[in-house]
Amino acid sequence: MGSSSNGVAPNNNVDKGVDYANYFCTYAFLYHQKEMLSDRVRMEAYYNAIFQNKHHFTGKTVLDVGTGSGILAIWSAQAGAKKVYAVEATKMAEHARELVKTNGVEHVVEVIEGSMEDVTLPEKVDVIISEWMGYFLLRESMFDSVICARDRWLNPDGIMYPSHARMWVAPIRSGLVDQKKIDYDRTMDDWSHFVDETKTFYGVDMGSLTKPFTDEQRKYYLETSLWNNLHPNQVIGKPAVIKEIDCLTASVNDILSLQANISSIITAENTRFCGFGGWFDVHFRGRKENPAKHEIELTTAPSEDLGTHWGQQVFLLYPSIRVSQGDNMSVNFLMNRSKENHRLLEVEFDCELRQSSGKSLQSFSKKFYIE
Amino acid sequence: MGSSSNGVAPNNNVDKGVDYANYFCTYAFLYHQKEMLSDRVRMEAYYNAIFQNKHHFTGKTVLDVGTGSGILAIWSAQAGAKKVYAVEATKMAEHARELVKTNGVEHVVEVIEGSMEDVTLPEKVDVIISEWMGYFLLRESMFDSVICARDRWLNPDGIMYPSHARMWVAPIRSGLVDQKKIDYDRTMDDWSHFVDETKTFYGVDMGSLTKPFTDEQRKYYLETSLWNNLHPNQVIGKPAVIKEIDCLTASVNDILSLQANISSIITAENTRFCGFGGWFDVHFRGRKENPAKHEIELTTAPSEDLGTHWGQQVFLLYPSIRVSQGDNMSVNFLMNRSKENHRLLEVEFDCELRQSSGKSLQSFSKKFYIE
Ligand SMILES: Nc1ncnc2c1ncn2[C@@H]1O[C@H](CSCC[C@H](N)C(=O)O)[C@@H](O)[C@H]1O
Ligand SMILES: Nc1ncnc2c1ncn2[C@@H]1O[C@H](CSCC[C@H](N)C(=O)O)[C@@H](O)[C@H]1O
Repeated sequence: MGSSSNGVAPNNNVDKGVDYANYFCTYAFLYHQKEMLSDRVRMEAYYNAIFQNKHHFTGKTVLDVGTGSGILAIWSAQAGAKKVYAVEATKMAEHARELVKTNGVEHVVEVIEGSMEDVTLPEKVDVIISEWMGYFLLRESMFDSVICARDRWLNPDGIMYPSHARMWVAPIRSGLVDQKKIDYDRTMDDWSHFVDETKTFYGVDMGSLTKPFTDEQRKYYLETSLWNNLHPNQVIGKPAVIKEIDCLTASVNDILSLQANISSIITAENTRFCGFGGWFDVHFRGRKENPAKHEIELTTAPSEDLGTHWGQQVFLLYPSIRVSQGDNMSVNFLMNRSKENHRLLEVEFDCELRQSSGKSLQSFSKKFYIE
Repeated sequence: MGSSSNGVAPNNNVDKGVDYANYFCTYAFLYHQKEMLSDRVRMEAYYNAIFQNKHHFTGKTVLDVGTGSGILAIWSAQAGAKKVYAVEATKMAEHARELVKTNGVEHVVEVIEGSMEDVTLPEKVDVIISEWMGYFLLRESMFDSVICARDRWLNPDGIMYPSHARMWVAPIRSGLVDQKKIDYDRTMDDWSHFVDETKTFYGVDMGSLTKPFTDEQRKYYLETSLWNNLHPNQVIGKPAVIKEIDCLTASVNDILSLQANISSIITAENTRFCGFGGWFDVHFRGRKENPAKHEIELTTAPSEDLGTHWGQQVFLLYPSIRVSQGDNMSVNFLMNRSKENHRLLEVEFDCELRQSSGKSLQSFSKKFYIE
C-alpha cells in the first residue's frame, strides 16, 4: 500500500470488479437507499445541517461524494447552491438524475456516474457533502474516497459536511452473550454428531477437521461483532472517545489503523460486563473561519427512541464478567483493516479490570472481526 | 463468448477475482461443505455409485473436479484407485489434503489447489468424478469446468461419474404464492408511505422512483425462483423432462441455452395451478462399452422423506389459476444464462392451458430469475 499523502486512497490497488461485487453492488438497490432515506435521525441531521446553514450553500459550488438517490445534492440545490456535482459509482446515478429532474433542480445538479477517484470536475468546489459513515464509522472505508475528493477538489477555504467525527466505546451488558454461546454450542454438538456418522456410514474420518471447523465457527459466532440497537441502560460504564477526526485535515494514514488507551468506570450496580458497544457521532460545524450558524450533531449512540440504521456494533466476551459499581477498566484499543478486504475491520481490546480499591480483577485480550 | 468446441468454457472471459467474490468464496467455508456432506441422499448415491462399481476404480486413475473436502477422492482411493487427482479452486484444498492424510490415502490422492481450467495433470485419467450440480442442475455453471476437464484429461475410453443428467419441470400448487404476494404488497404500501413522508418532511418528491422501485421489488418477490422442499402432493400434473445430458458428449454450447416444448396433464382434482417446480436427477451408468454393474440414481424430485439440500426450484404465478383434472398445458421453456453473472440463470415459460375438451383456458408468458 502506497502513501496516501496525495489523497490517493490505498484502495487504488484493489481490483475494481471485486470491490464492486463485495461492496458497491448493494447500493445499486433502491431498497437499500430507501433504508437510509427512512432513517429519521440521519435525515433530520443532514436536513438541518443544510437548511439551518444556508449561508454555506447559497451561491456556492458543492460536491456530493456518493450521492446515491441524490438526496443531499437536491437539498444543497434547494438551499441555494449555484452548482452541485453529484458523484455516484453505481447505476443508482440514473435514478438520482431522474429525481434531480422531477424535483426541478437539473439546472443546478449534475449527476456524474463514476468512482470519485476517477472523476474529473471542471472546477474546485466550496463545499463537500457526503454521507460516508459505515458501521462503527469506518467500516466500508468510504471516508478514503471523501479524503481523495477533498484533496483534489475542495477550495483552500472550503467546508466539509460533516466537519468532524468521533468514535465511541463503552462497556455493556447484553443477553446476546447467552444466545450466541448457545448457537455456537449447538453447531459444535452437531459437528461431533456429523463426524461420528460420516465415520460410521461412509468410512471417512473427519476428525482432523474439528480444529479448523471450530475456528471457523468460533470466528462466526463468537469473534465477529454484531449489529445491535442497544438500550441506554445496557451501557454499564462511562463511554469513552477512541478517535476524533477533523474531516478537513485527516489523511488516510490517520484512519488506516487506530490505537487508543481509554478507561471507563462501571456506573451500573452489580452487573455483568458482557463486552463493548461501539458507535460514532458526526458534527456539522463548518470551519473556524466560516463556522456553522447552527451546529448540528448526528449521533448513533444508544437511545431509547432515536435509533438509527447504524445501530451499534457489539463486541461480546465469553464468558461475561461480574462487575460492581466503581470498578475500573483500562483498555488498549487497536483497529486495523482486514487484509482480505480493505473495507472490513479487525479490532482488539486489551483490557484490565480493577476494583475501586485498585485490586486487579481480571485482564484479557480479545480480537474481533467487523464483517 | 468464444466457441466451446475445444472444451474451453466461456467463463474464461470472466474476471477471476469477481468470480471468486461471487461464487467460490462460499465453498471455502467448512460449514458449507458440511451441509453437502450431511445430505444423505447425495452421499448415498455417490457412495453406492463408487463402491457398487469398484471395477471402474480398481487400479484406475481418477480425476475429482472440485474436490471440496476431498470426500469423493478419498472414496475413489478406498475403492482401489491407483491414483486420484483432486482439484479444488478454494483454500478448502488444504483441508482436503489434511483429510486425505488422516484417512491414510495420501499415497493415492494428490490434492491440487487451483482452477480446473488452469491445472495441468501429468497424465490422462480413466474416470472423472464430480459433484457439479447446482440448483435446477445448471445454476453455478460448474458443469462447464467438468466439460473442460473431460475434453483435456479423460482417456478416449474413460468414464464420467455421473454419466447422465436430466432436468424436470412439473405444474405445482403452493401456499408460497399467497405469502410472497403479501410480502410484495407490504413493501409497496411501505413505499407509498415513504414517498408521502419524504415529500412532507424533507421537501423531496420521490414519486418518479416508484416505477423502478416497483420493478426492483417485483423482480425480488415475484420474478425470482425460490428454493423449496415440495411435498409430492404439491405436484399437480405429470412431470416432464426438459433436458437430457450425456456427460460424456455434452458441450458447453449444449447447455448455454436450453429450449424445450413439453406438455403436462393436470392429475390433481380441482386445484390451483400456482406455477412450476423444477428439479433434476443424475445417473451413474458408466459407458456403453464399460457399463456400471449397479446403476445408481440420484434424484432431487419432490419426496416425502428423502429431501436433498438442492430441494426444488419453484417458479410462481401471480395470480394462480384454477384448473381441473384432465386440463392440459403445453409449455415452451427457455433458459439462458444471466448476462451479468454467467453462473446465474434466467428462464421463461410460455404456457397454454386447455380443457380436456380442447377449449382454451388461458395462456401466459412469464420470465424468472434463478439467483
Ligand atoms: N468512491 C466512490 N465513488 C462514488 N460513489 C461512491 C464511492 N464510495 C461509495 N459511493 C456511493 O456512496 C453512497 C453512500 S450511501 C449515501 C447515499 C446518499 N448520499 C444519502 O445520503 O442517502 C452509495 O450509493 C455508494 O455507492
Ligand atoms: N473450476 C473449478 N476448479 C476447481 N474447483 C472448482 C471449480 N468449480 C467449482 N469448484 C469446487 O467444486 C466444489 C463443488 S461442491 C462438491 C464438493 C465435493 N466434491 C463433495 O462432493 O462434497 C466446490 O468446493 C468448489 O469450490
